Amino acid sequence: MDVYENLKKLGLQIPSPPPVGGKYVPAKQVGNLVYTSGQGPIVEGKPAYTGKVGKELSLEQGQEAAKICILNTLSVLEKAIGNLNRVKNVVKVLGFVASAPNFNQQPAVINAGSQLLIDVFGDKGQHARSAIGTNELPGNIPVEIEVIFEIE
Amino acid sequence: MDVYENLKKLGLQIPSPPPVGGKYVPAKQVGNLVYTSGQGPIVEGKPAYTGKVGKELSLEQGQEAAKICILNTLSVLEKAIGNLNRVKNVVKVLGFVASAPNFNQQPAVINAGSQLLIDVFGDKGQHARSAIGTNELPGNIPVEIEVIFEIE
Amino acid sequence: MDVYENLKKLGLQIPSPPPVGGKYVPAKQVGNLVYTSGQGPIVEGKPAYTGKVGKELSLEQGQEAAKICILNTLSVLEKAIGNLNRVKNVVKVLGFVASAPNFNQQPAVINAGSQLLIDVFGDKGQHARSAIGTNELPGNIPVEIEVIFEIE
Repeated sequence: MDVYENLKKLGLQIPSPPPVGGKYVPAKQVGNLVYTSGQGPIVEGKPAYTGKVGKELSLEQGQEAAKICILNTLSVLEKAIGNLNRVKNVVKVLGFVASAPNFNQQPAVINAGSQLLIDVFGDKGQHARSAIGTNELPGNIPVEIEVIFEIE
Repeated sequence: MDVYENLKKLGLQIPSPPPVGGKYVPAKQVGNLVYTSGQGPIVEGKPAYTGKVGKELSLEQGQEAAKICILNTLSVLEKAIGNLNRVKNVVKVLGFVASAPNFNQQPAVINAGSQLLIDVFGDKGQHARSAIGTNELPGNIPVEIEVIFEIE
Repeated sequence: MDVYENLKKLGLQIPSPPPVGGKYVPAKQVGNLVYTSGQGPIVEGKPAYTGKVGKELSLEQGQEAAKICILNTLSVLEKAIGNLNRVKNVVKVLGFVASAPNFNQQPAVINAGSQLLIDVFGDKGQHARSAIGTNELPGNIPVEIEVIFEIE
């Protein structure tokens, strides 16, 4: 299995790493674990979506945002480790969804990102996860996702 | 110390693992760490409680919900590792409480789950923790808890 | 590089560990990782700030709160490991900001804590991070931060 073949089949390209939005690094390795910083749906330096899911944004738009978060995660991970084929396991996903009152489909939003990880990494992409609502996210983005990877 | 003796003394039984609510696995092991996915107060496939703590639900109901989250965590952990006596340490708890405006007793809610971990695992159950409020959780559950365990 | 020299140059002193606010321990070590529990802006046992950033509190007050969270984190870490010069890496920061509606500068708030980690630990202080909004935090504090450290 080759991660880049999988991406090609999905018609996806790894974007350039988004600009770093604060006093942190996009990814940090400790032992064989890599922690990626919370990624938003940033495309070419700007949020592709803003607003709350369930109000300004539909479930489907939230899912598109979650996919972009994961693409950006792959981008910063690739920059940190050189080659995505070094990923041994996707360990853990923590996803936050900026949620309008009474919007309770956070898992359905984050699923779009989780599915992408599985499509790209196969069985190694299976991960533990929490999907959480929040009232506000940085820059009014609708989704922010952080991931822990195990690498070889 | 036997975990199952402790559970018996507490009059508790490990439930069946709750249905998986998305594109994730209930637990993922990396090295000697096991990350459990965020668990809610699901009983027999349905939320035992819904609503915000401090509005539809009392502090005490939030605490009952937190206990069920931890029982479900033990359930998915047991399924992943076979025997809860393999737990060497409860490392970290991250608990989210769906909170009505001005409800600020998140630690008191999550304490009920933390106490259960200590009652079940003894000194090994002592853990680092954050207790956080949120406006909305999946399916309108009041509490969601994820845990990191070290196993032998 | 000596952490205590750096603190001296910054004119900072490590405070006494704040009281533990629940059924958890301030820090837990597993292997060479130490997880610190979520710390708030507690000074001499009481919150130095309460309220939501963007309403009762300004961005600058939120930043002051974030700095105190990190000072308290250093305090509980020092108590756990004996000497802060044992820190090999700051791995991961997860920061929550109690946010008024439409307040979206969570990264700017948490930056004040991140910068302090970099000032104290130098290059080893560079960390992965997520900055997340929330509607309510324990005791109405404006900021809560948890950190993962690698130690020697």
